[in-house]
Amino acid sequence: MLMNLDIKRNQGLQTMSDLSMLEIQELLNEAQSFSNGKQWSAGKPVFAANLFFEPSTRTRFSFEVAEKKLGMELLQFDGETSSAKKGETLYDTVKTLEAIGADLVVIRHPEDQYYKELLPKVNIPIINAGDGCGQHPTQSLLDLLTIQQEFTDFNQLHIVICGDLRHSRVARSNAEVLTKLGAKVSISGPRSWMNGFEHMYPYVTMDEAVKIADVMMMLRIQHERHDGDISFSKEEYHQQYGLTIEHEKKMQPHSIILHPAPVNRDVEIADELVECSRSRIFKQMKNGVFVRMAVLKRALNH
Amino acid sequence: MLMNLDIKRNQGLQTMSDLSMLEIQELLNEAQSFSNGKQWSAGKPVFAANLFFEPSTRTRFSFEVAEKKLGMELLQFDGETSSAKKGETLYDTVKTLEAIGADLVVIRHPEDQYYKELLPKVNIPIINAGDGCGQHPTQSLLDLLTIQQEFTDFNQLHIVICGDLRHSRVARSNAEVLTKLGAKVSISGPRSWMNGFEHMYPYVTMDEAVKIADVMMMLRIQHERHDGDISFSKEEYHQQYGLTIEHEKKMQPHSIILHPAPVNRDVEIADELVECSRSRIFKQMKNGVFVRMAVLKRALNH
Amino acid sequence: MLMNLDIKRNQGLQTMSDLSMLEIQELLNEAQSFSNGKQWSAGKPVFAANLFFEPSTRTRFSFEVAEKKLGMELLQFDGETSSAKKGETLYDTVKTLEAIGADLVVIRHPEDQYYKELLPKVNIPIINAGDGCGQHPTQSLLDLLTIQQEFTDFNQLHIVICGDLRHSRVARSNAEVLTKLGAKVSISGPRSWMNGFEHMYPYVTMDEAVKIADVMMMLRIQHERHDGDISFSKEEYHQQYGLTIEHEKKMQPHSIILHPAPVNRDVEIADELVECSRSRIFKQMKNGVFVRMAVLKRALNH
Repeated sequence: MLMNLDIKRNQGLQTMSDLSMLEIQELLNEAQSFSNGKQWSAGKPVFAANLFFEPSTRTRFSFEVAEKKLGMELLQFDGETSSAKKGETLYDTVKTLEAIGADLVVIRHPEDQYYKELLPKVNIPIINAGDGCGQHPTQSLLDLLTIQQEFTDFNQLHIVICGDLRHSRVARSNAEVLTKLGAKVSISGPRSWMNGFEHMYPYVTMDEAVKIADVMMMLRIQHERHDGDISFSKEEYHQQYGLTIEHEKKMQPHSIILHPAPVNRDVEIADELVECSRSRIFKQMKNGVFVRMAVLKRALNH
Repeated sequence: MLMNLDIKRNQGLQTMSDLSMLEIQELLNEAQSFSNGKQWSAGKPVFAANLFFEPSTRTRFSFEVAEKKLGMELLQFDGETSSAKKGETLYDTVKTLEAIGADLVVIRHPEDQYYKELLPKVNIPIINAGDGCGQHPTQSLLDLLTIQQEFTDFNQLHIVICGDLRHSRVARSNAEVLTKLGAKVSISGPRSWMNGFEHMYPYVTMDEAVKIADVMMMLRIQHERHDGDISFSKEEYHQQYGLTIEHEKKMQPHSIILHPAPVNRDVEIADELVECSRSRIFKQMKNGVFVRMAVLKRALNH
Repeated sequence: MLMNLDIKRNQGLQTMSDLSMLEIQELLNEAQSFSNGKQWSAGKPVFAANLFFEPSTRTRFSFEVAEKKLGMELLQFDGETSSAKKGETLYDTVKTLEAIGADLVVIRHPEDQYYKELLPKVNIPIINAGDGCGQHPTQSLLDLLTIQQEFTDFNQLHIVICGDLRHSRVARSNAEVLTKLGAKVSISGPRSWMNGFEHMYPYVTMDEAVKIADVMMMLRIQHERHDGDISFSKEEYHQQYGLTIEHEKKMQPHSIILHPAPVNRDVEIADELVECSRSRIFKQMKNGVFVRMAVLKRALNH
């Protein structure tokens, strides 16, 4: 009973493992309803505070559009023009926004699991919009929604996750959830970037990947998180680990391409393929709004 | 027929030459209606994305107020806190905003004709809020509206465009449109800043200008676009090419002063003249909101 | 009659001394009504322009929430992304926002009494959100509201103002108003930071302060306004002038702690005391919204 109340108190979302498979499916269903035109609003003024301590276009605007579509008021916190400059901690900033009237907070922060110190004492939902090299649950959900829209059922689907697995915020949780949903997951990319994934999922070369995959899940090279440890040129990466025009021709007719964007064009994916008929990259962005609407609605306990 | 559809698809505004004289007059009439208190809203949620890659106060807030008066939701993109920092191109940024739900984009960008690469593939209206040393069509329209409010008819009016014609985004289009409307255009300012204008329009000194002009259209010295090529002091510029207190006294009783602002006080115009009875500088700012309302309404095809 | 009209024209708020004791009480009553759930809106579109030339979290978001709760549209001016970068003066910026449609401006600026040059020529209310080492009237009002909520009556209350009195924007006005309201004010902190206060109010050590105070009004050390003139370490300051855990134990059972925040934890106040049962620090933030609603409503002459 107490635990239930506790959960009621803060229906935020920090990691995909916070969610049961049932809850994931409920969120995807809700997101699909929003995609189909469902309208919903809280019926009272709701203030959403967006705290972005790292640059972002997609995630930030996607949350903004989702919040506005749900009729919320926004408080836009930018690390550069706030008391964070006077040395205020994240904890004090969030408690301040709570005191001032924020009903929920959306946070992107460069520190892994920044939310751990917040959860015990913050009384409003915390929605994680990306923590360091940790998680990015709404990105995972929009990937799942995009696959589900395409194939209806995850069972027997073969998904190959390709590229910078080491710094990806979604590779691990996507692999875990997809496996639980009955899909087969393989991995591809530079061996030294596999980060332990190679012990759990089969490794395939890009040549093999394009032939077997129903979904090529390309990851962005997180240049800003590499410390000069990239030993190949962009061209070399593209030829060996990227999705080239030649690779795409070997894909199965029904297979699709995902990428969280921003794309490093001609590195992870050939420039011409970004908007090709197989690409669901812009569809992912569209879905991001609907997934976030579902997560925000859930945060308000409706 | 196809072309018509094409235009329908994207009723943005990039340059004044996109507009026929009839369309210009329609926009001025609509703007005047808004000035007179006309209310209008799209009747559905509209998301306007404002992308400013250069500092701006007047233009940015003017668009914001115009959008809010039309009931739009705003997405404020700031080049400094976005994935542009991760190296994302303007094209990918605009496509992202389109995917996320923007219904139109307003862009200021330091690159001339930045919109050329966008137009073929972006499906939402692009409204140019200033491109490099290129154009700034809503500024041109607000200049025209301010003159029309004063004199009703452009025919036989004498407008002298004064100052930094080389870097002005409005000098060329204003001169062209005003000439088509029947006005007489002359130019004044440093000879080396005339940028070819001297082959098309009569050059006059400031002493002559103030005597003949119905409208003194002063331009801002675009210091940020000069590469240390200014060979005179501010005081020298003011005395020789600026509108001094002595000059103002020689103007005709009915003549007015325009300036796009921000004014370099005591350079282009004597400090005391900025808010004198001849000055329409703040009137121009007010008109900017109404002109932008008209352009935004047109972008939604209403 | 003329003076009345003048006041009508600009019901802004720059310093606490602009307000009579009656007006202060009216504002506190109005704020308390908002705290109790009162709803109010202007009944017409109102544009509030927020100009922050210094970093701020609490004050900025507090005004934002207050404005949105009153149904206003916001224009967020940030010193870093505007024509201020082209060298535009504060005066020209404010006149621009007025021309574009702002109905009132809220300004934080590093310069003392920045508003002096604005008042004669700006026709919309100017609400001071902090000027240099000058004043911060809405902070003063929220301090007063928090004390009044606790003790109902100021008469005979003993308030000790502690710490960086030299750079505080509220110390002087709070001391003056509290004295007029019948409270007894003492001061504490480094002798060299007393800034003349020692000639008007009794000085007490922290050991004495905690025993006699009904309200410990702790001030933030304004590190950004000190020029390397701080001769003691944080630990030394805390032990000698800060509110330590040992000090708190000597406070009277009913006594409370105020601090404008952001707190330098373990400097002005021991970390553990920031959220202790005596602390009204987050209550102050909540009250900040209600006080600002009252000030904004007054600015619209309602």
